[in-house]
Amino acid sequence: MPTLEPAGLGLRTRLFKLLFESDSPAAKAFDIGLIILIFASVGIVMLDSIESYHQRYGDLFFYTEWCITVLFTVELALRIYCLQKPWLYLKSFYGIIDLLAILPTWLTLIIPGSQTLIIVRILRGLRLFRVFDMMVLEGEKRLLMDAMIRSRHQILVFLFSVLMLVTIFSSVLYLIEPAEAGFTSIPKAIYWGIVTLTTVGYGDITPVTPLGQFISVAIMLIGYSIIALPAGVFSAEVIRALREERYSAEACPGCGRDRHERDARYCKFCGTWLNEDTIDPRKESG
Amino acid sequence: MPTLEPAGLGLRTRLFKLLFESDSPAAKAFDIGLIILIFASVGIVMLDSIESYHQRYGDLFFYTEWCITVLFTVELALRIYCLQKPWLYLKSFYGIIDLLAILPTWLTLIIPGSQTLIIVRILRGLRLFRVFDMMVLEGEKRLLMDAMIRSRHQILVFLFSVLMLVTIFSSVLYLIEPAEAGFTSIPKAIYWGIVTLTTVGYGDITPVTPLGQFISVAIMLIGYSIIALPAGVFSAEVIRALREERYSAEACPGCGRDRHERDARYCKFCGTWLNEDTIDPRKESG
Amino acid sequence: MPTLEPAGLGLRTRLFKLLFESDSPAAKAFDIGLIILIFASVGIVMLDSIESYHQRYGDLFFYTEWCITVLFTVELALRIYCLQKPWLYLKSFYGIIDLLAILPTWLTLIIPGSQTLIIVRILRGLRLFRVFDMMVLEGEKRLLMDAMIRSRHQILVFLFSVLMLVTIFSSVLYLIEPAEAGFTSIPKAIYWGIVTLTTVGYGDITPVTPLGQFISVAIMLIGYSIIALPAGVFSAEVIRALREERYSAEACPGCGRDRHERDARYCKFCGTWLNEDTIDPRKESG
Amino acid sequence: MPTLEPAGLGLRTRLFKLLFESDSPAAKAFDIGLIILIFASVGIVMLDSIESYHQRYGDLFFYTEWCITVLFTVELALRIYCLQKPWLYLKSFYGIIDLLAILPTWLTLIIPGSQTLIIVRILRGLRLFRVFDMMVLEGEKRLLMDAMIRSRHQILVFLFSVLMLVTIFSSVLYLIEPAEAGFTSIPKAIYWGIVTLTTVGYGDITPVTPLGQFISVAIMLIGYSIIALPAGVFSAEVIRALREERYSAEACPGCGRDRHERDARYCKFCGTWLNEDTIDPRKESG
Repeated sequence: MPTLEPAGLGLRTRLFKLLFESDSPAAKAFDIGLIILIFASVGIVMLDSIESYHQRYGDLFFYTEWCITVLFTVELALRIYCLQKPWLYLKSFYGIIDLLAILPTWLTLIIPGSQTLIIVRILRGLRLFRVFDMMVLEGEKRLLMDAMIRSRHQILVFLFSVLMLVTIFSSVLYLIEPAEAGFTSIPKAIYWGIVTLTTVGYGDITPVTPLGQFISVAIMLIGYSIIALPAGVFSAEVIRALREERYSAEACPGCGRDRHERDARYCKFCGTWLNEDTIDPRKESG
Repeated sequence: MPTLEPAGLGLRTRLFKLLFESDSPAAKAFDIGLIILIFASVGIVMLDSIESYHQRYGDLFFYTEWCITVLFTVELALRIYCLQKPWLYLKSFYGIIDLLAILPTWLTLIIPGSQTLIIVRILRGLRLFRVFDMMVLEGEKRLLMDAMIRSRHQILVFLFSVLMLVTIFSSVLYLIEPAEAGFTSIPKAIYWGIVTLTTVGYGDITPVTPLGQFISVAIMLIGYSIIALPAGVFSAEVIRALREERYSAEACPGCGRDRHERDARYCKFCGTWLNEDTIDPRKESG
Repeated sequence: MPTLEPAGLGLRTRLFKLLFESDSPAAKAFDIGLIILIFASVGIVMLDSIESYHQRYGDLFFYTEWCITVLFTVELALRIYCLQKPWLYLKSFYGIIDLLAILPTWLTLIIPGSQTLIIVRILRGLRLFRVFDMMVLEGEKRLLMDAMIRSRHQILVFLFSVLMLVTIFSSVLYLIEPAEAGFTSIPKAIYWGIVTLTTVGYGDITPVTPLGQFISVAIMLIGYSIIALPAGVFSAEVIRALREERYSAEACPGCGRDRHERDARYCKFCGTWLNEDTIDPRKESG
Repeated sequence: MPTLEPAGLGLRTRLFKLLFESDSPAAKAFDIGLIILIFASVGIVMLDSIESYHQRYGDLFFYTEWCITVLFTVELALRIYCLQKPWLYLKSFYGIIDLLAILPTWLTLIIPGSQTLIIVRILRGLRLFRVFDMMVLEGEKRLLMDAMIRSRHQILVFLFSVLMLVTIFSSVLYLIEPAEAGFTSIPKAIYWGIVTLTTVGYGDITPVTPLGQFISVAIMLIGYSIIALPAGVFSAEVIRALREERYSAEACPGCGRDRHERDARYCKFCGTWLNEDTIDPRKESG
C-alpha cells in the first residue's frame, strides 16, 4: 500500500546497507571498487610527482584525478543523504577523511596549483582503513590498538629518557668532534645521535676522532640494550591481551559479573558456584 | 611364485624408501649426497657470476652444471617411477621445485644463454628444505610456521599502517627537501622513508634541511616505538604455542579441572588418576 | 598568639607544598612554569650552538640565559630555605642536578666563556624528570626501572660476551682488510665491528675484500640472532612485573591456595571469603 | 709427623684454592690481579696495532708483553702443578684458552713477527669468562645459555630460511641493477642483501633503478617482519626459564621426583599428598 512508502524508505536503507555495511554481495563489490579507486587516486599523486611521467602523462593524470574526485564527491553526497544525523558523521574521523579526500582538488579551482595539497590528497589512503575495518581485520586491529594504548605511557617515558640521553651524549660529541665531521651545532649533533641510537645509521655524519668514536660506540651499546624496552612492554601487553581469551565470557549467576578465569569454580566477587550444570560441593556436604 | 612379483615391487618400494624416507643408512647417505649436490649446484651459479671466475673456470662450471642436471633428472625420473600417483607429486610444492631445478639447464638447448634463468637455478636451494624436513627440523619449523600463520593478519595490518605512515611523512619530505638531496619524486621519498623506518639507513638519500632532519627524527622515533609490534605479536604467539605444547587439554575425571602438564599422571588438585585407559597403580597395589 | 608563630611556619610549609608537591592548583601552575623555563633554557643552549643564530641572537640568548639562571638560583634558595635538612637535599640526585643547573653560568663570571660547560647546562633537562615524577608517570617509570634493574646482570653478561665476539672478529678483519678500507688499527676495527653488530651501519668503514665481506656477513647474522637477547630478557621481566601486579600473594584461609587476582573477594577454588578483616556478606545476610 | 706430609699437601691445596676458587680474600685479590693483567694484555695488542703508538711505545709494549707472558706461563705451570689430573684440565675449554694465551708470544722466538698471531693473543680475553664465572654471574649466564641452547634449532631453521630468501632476492637484483651500482656478482649481491635484511645498511652498495629500489623495499619490509622471529623465540625461552622458578624444588615424599608446580597439592606422578605438614583430605574423608 502506498501509505507506508516502502520504496522511498527502502532507497535510503538500501543505500545505507551498500555504503556503510559489507554483508551483501553488492556492498562487497562496492567496497572492492572503492579500494581500486583509492589506490588509483593515491597512485596518480605518486606517479605525477615523477618529472618524466608528469611531462608525458600529465594531462591523463589531471583528468583521472577529476573523475575520481567527482566520484568521491557523489559518494560523500550519498553517504550524507542516507544518514539521519549527517553532521555527526562529518565530525567523525572517517567523515573528516572523506571531506579531505575531495577538498584539495575542488580548492584548485579557487587557489590553482597549490603544491602542498599533495599531502592532503595522499591522506585519501586512510579511507582504506574503513573498508578494511568492515571486511576482515576488526579483531586484529583492536588487539594491536589496545596494546598500543595500554603501553603508550611507558613508551612516552621511554622516549623522553632516550631523548635526554641522546641530548647529553650528542652535546659531548658536538664539543669533541671538528665541525668538518658534520657536528656543526647541537641540534645537528642530536640528529646524528638519534640516527645512531635508533640504529638507522645513515653515515652522512660520522665521528672521526678516536674519542668521538669511543663515545658513539658507548651510545650504540647502551642504546641497543635500552632500545629493547618498547618491544618488551609491547610484548607484555599483547600477551596480556591474548590471555584475556583465558577469561570465560559467562556471567556469574549470583551477581552477574563476568571475566572469571576459566579454571574458577566460584565467583571471585560473590562466592556463588559458577558451574550451574553440577552441584556445589559445599551444599552437598552442608 | 611369479604372480606375487616380489622383486619388481621390492625395487619400487626400496626406491621409495631411499628417495622419500630417511630411516635407513642408505637413505641417509643418499640425503647427504643430495645436500652436497645442491650446495655444489647453487655454488656454481654464484661463482660463475663473478667475472674473473667465469673467464678462468667457465668451462668447468659448464660441464659440472650439466653433470648435476643429468643427475637431478635421473633422480626425478626415479621419483616419478616409484610413485603410484606421480602427477600429484609433480603438482606439489616439492615437485615443482624438482622440475624447476632441471628445466632451466635443459631449456638452454632450445633458448641458449638465457641470463634470467639464473634465478630459477638458484631456486634449487629450496630442495634443501625437503631434506632438512626429513632429517631433524620438523618440530621447530612447525612451531615457527604456526606462530607466523597465526600472527599474519596482525602483521599485515601493521605493515599497511606503517606504509600509510611512511607515505604521508615521505610526501611531506618530498615537498620540504630540495631535489638535490635525492627526494626527486614521491616514490623515491617513500623508498627513503622505508629505508629510514626499518632502520636500514643506507645514507644514499638523506635530508639536508633542518626541518627535514627534524621530521626524519620524528619518523625514526615514532617508527622505532611502533616497529616493536611484530616482535611483540610474534613473541606472544610463540609463547602461546609453547604453552599449548605443555598442557594437556583433557580434564581430570575427579574434579573436572584441566590444564594438567602433559607428563602428569595424577591430578595436581585432587590426586585422581588421570589416565583412565589404564589402571591406577595405587589401586592395584592397595 | 605570637608564641606559636603560625605565619612564619605557614610560609615555609606553604613554600614546601608549592615547591615539592603538586596537589594544589598553585603548585601545578608552578610546575608548568618550571617546565617552560627548563625547555627554554635547554633550547637556548641548542640554538646558541648554531653559528648563524649565535651571531644574530647571541645577545638575546646571553641575557635570557642570565634571567633563567637568576630564577633557578632563587628557586634553589627557596627550596633550601623551606627544608629542615637542606644538606640531605643537596646531596640527593635532584639536589645535585639543581646545583649543576645554575653553577656553569655563575662560573663564567670567574672563568669566562668555558665552552665545555655547555654539557652541564644541557643537564638541566634532567630536572624535568622530577616534575614528571610528581605529575603523572610514577607507576610507569617504576615498572620500567624495576625490569631494567632486574635484568641488568643478564644484559651486562650479554654485553661483555658481545664485546669479546666483536673484538675477535674485528681483529680478523684488521688482518684481512687493507688499511685503505679504513681498518687502520684494532680499535678502529672494533668501532666498525660494533657499528655493524648493532646494525647501525654508518658505511664510513666497509670491508672491500670478498673474505672480509664474508666474515662481516657472519658477524651480521650471528650478531642479529644474538641481539634479540636483551629484548627477550627484558620482555620476560616486564611480563613478570605485570603479572605480579595482578596477583595477590596472600593464601585463601579455606583451602590455602594463593595467586588470587587482586580484585578477588572469594577464593576461586573453594568459595571461601578471602578478606578476613571484614565479614562475609553471605554470612551476614544468611 | 712427616708421613702425612701436611705441608706439601697443604701447598698444593692452598694453591688450588687460590687459583681455582674465589672464596678467600687471597683468591679474590688474585682474581682481580688476573683481570687487570688480562685487560692490560689485550689492551697492548690493540694499542700496538695503532701505527703512531707502535712507533712511539713499540719497545714498551714489547717488554710488557713478555712480562705478562712470563707471568701467565708461571700461573699455568702452578695450575698444572696443583692439579691431580693436569691433562684433563689442558684438554678442557679453559685449559686450551690458557695455553693459547701464552703460545703465540713464545712462538715468536721460533717464527719471528707472525702478524696473524695477534688474533690468538686477543683470545686471552676469553680468560675473563672464567674469572667472572667464579665471581658473580653464574646464574645469569646459565639462564641465557639455557635459553640459547634451547632455541638454537629454531634459530638455525630461521637463519637458513632467511639465507634462501636473501639469495633469491639478491639474484634478482643482480640481474636488474647495473654493475656500476655495485652488484657485480651474485655473492656481492648476497652481501648487499644481508646488509639490507639485517638493517645494517652500510650504503656502500645501493640499488639505483626504480625496480631495484622497489624490490629492496620489499626485502626490508618482509625482512623486518620476519626478523622479529629470533627475538620471539628467545623471549619465549627466557620466559619459560624464568617460570621454572615457579616449580617447587621439594621432592615428592612418595616417589621422590621434584619439579612440581607450586600450586600442586598431589604429586602428578604418583598421586601422593605433597603438603606433609597438613592432613590429606582424602584420608580425612575416607
